[in-house]
Amino acid sequence: MDTLTRIEQALQNALALAEGTGGPPKLAAALRHAVFPGGARIRPQLCLAVAKACGDPDPELADGAAVAIELLHCASLVHDDLPCFDDATTRRGRPTVHTAYGERIAVLAGDGLIVLAFQALAHAGRHSPARLPGLLSIVAQRVGAPTGIVAGQAWECEPYVGLAAYHRAKTGSLFSACTEAGALAAGANPERWQSFGLFLGEAYQVADDIRDVALATEMLGKPAGQDIALCRPSCATEMGLAGAIAHFDALLARAVGAIPPCKGAPALRALVRAESERLVPEATVRAPALAA
Amino acid sequence: MDTLTRIEQALQNALALAEGTGGPPKLAAALRHAVFPGGARIRPQLCLAVAKACGDPDPELADGAAVAIELLHCASLVHDDLPCFDDATTRRGRPTVHTAYGERIAVLAGDGLIVLAFQALAHAGRHSPARLPGLLSIVAQRVGAPTGIVAGQAWECEPYVGLAAYHRAKTGSLFSACTEAGALAAGANPERWQSFGLFLGEAYQVADDIRDVALATEMLGKPAGQDIALCRPSCATEMGLAGAIAHFDALLARAVGAIPPCKGAPALRALVRAESERLVPEATVRAPALAA
Repeated sequence: MDTLTRIEQALQNALALAEGTGGPPKLAAALRHAVFPGGARIRPQLCLAVAKACGDPDPELADGAAVAIELLHCASLVHDDLPCFDDATTRRGRPTVHTAYGERIAVLAGDGLIVLAFQALAHAGRHSPARLPGLLSIVAQRVGAPTGIVAGQAWECEPYVGLAAYHRAKTGSLFSACTEAGALAAGANPERWQSFGLFLGEAYQVADDIRDVALATEMLGKPAGQDIALCRPSCATEMGLAGAIAHFDALLARAVGAIPPCKGAPALRALVRAESERLVPEATVRAPALAA
Repeated sequence: MDTLTRIEQALQNALALAEGTGGPPKLAAALRHAVFPGGARIRPQLCLAVAKACGDPDPELADGAAVAIELLHCASLVHDDLPCFDDATTRRGRPTVHTAYGERIAVLAGDGLIVLAFQALAHAGRHSPARLPGLLSIVAQRVGAPTGIVAGQAWECEPYVGLAAYHRAKTGSLFSACTEAGALAAGANPERWQSFGLFLGEAYQVADDIRDVALATEMLGKPAGQDIALCRPSCATEMGLAGAIAHFDALLARAVGAIPPCKGAPALRALVRAESERLVPEATVRAPALAA
């Protein structure tokens, strides 16, 4: 089974834990709407790629970690899209959850996805619970306060925030959850894998800033120019487009340099290169920006 | 240490996991605002009372379960108070989280508390992870979809819902989490303790309906008459005040009858009696309602 099929199957199994007869239909539909069809599934791919690089001795546990992280990412998107935050009406080219099901169901769907993430991880570790406390702790720390993605979003409510701290919390933290949890699920030392995830996540956030400025709405699948419209800290507005692209390249180089020596390193480097082109495409972003 | 002191201490320890330098200050303040000072702490009290009734061989794990449930309860209150739900400005006689810190921080504080609940439970089980998958599964099922408190709240967005199913999901489920998790944390069979929690939780929700109709705002610490104002399913409006009180008494009797035989049964019965008087006081609710 290829990795993307493995991820979709594991997500389907997780959603099944939250479904079943007797539940409110709108909530069930909203949970599914938030998770399927997905985006690039880069986070669970990264988690499983690291687990594979470390031997992948417990694939069910690695799947549980990957799914938990993806569900938490989906939850953060549902809540970030709410009227009180981005007030976004579209996401991945479809109506956002609150647009389709109302604001109340969107709040609850986000909550339900957070709960489901931990439920799925616990379920995946039911036969081998020894690594569960560590995995749960990594995932929770990278999502919650004071330095996870919830904290990253909360920095937008503060009068001042440094760009690096903001990016690290808002995006880097969940990427480091991927690499750390992928390693721990495979019995490897998670600390050795943290920097790889942090640099990759920071690069991802910078790419998001770049794309927000450089690409039109129809290519993004969500409204473009939101960072400027919402006065959000943005690398592309702070450094200029060319400066932001140079920063993105430097972060990716640091991410590649932080991959610990292992048999799976070439595959991980290939994954990073493919993401680089997917996130900041030569033809539509890089060349036009550098020619401008 | 008495039980309430034990609970407050365990909650303080849990909050410390979400604090520390480098986090956004408003989020940290909002998390604390949502948890301290608390209400009656009836859920963690119930969880620990059941753990004690079962011998309490692993107090740290029981504390972790009790704290997780209370944090999830606090999270549900923060989100239920949001403008899109109850739009409540006061809770326990103080400003609600969104009134004090804004709607965005309130959404994030609720999210952060859900994450912290699972983090605290995992932390409490780090030395003895064997019971963690079961505990996490109980707590997640009683909170998430399709039948937990998130689902209970989502029933308010459906055109029709039966009152018993709604009450069971909205309140009963988290009370059964208390009794089941308290039992499992102490190594007892959680299924034997489920009914006790469910009946008690249903009684608690009925009491909430009764108090919403019978008591004035200053006694409730939140606006009275909200169920009618928000067209929410309510026992007191459906059965009348006297009928609702009779239903409350019957549910408490069934709860007491569902306590499994154990050394701690007398203490549990005393806890139920004390709650009965606290929830539906003779002088201010029961006598005036039955005289009307």
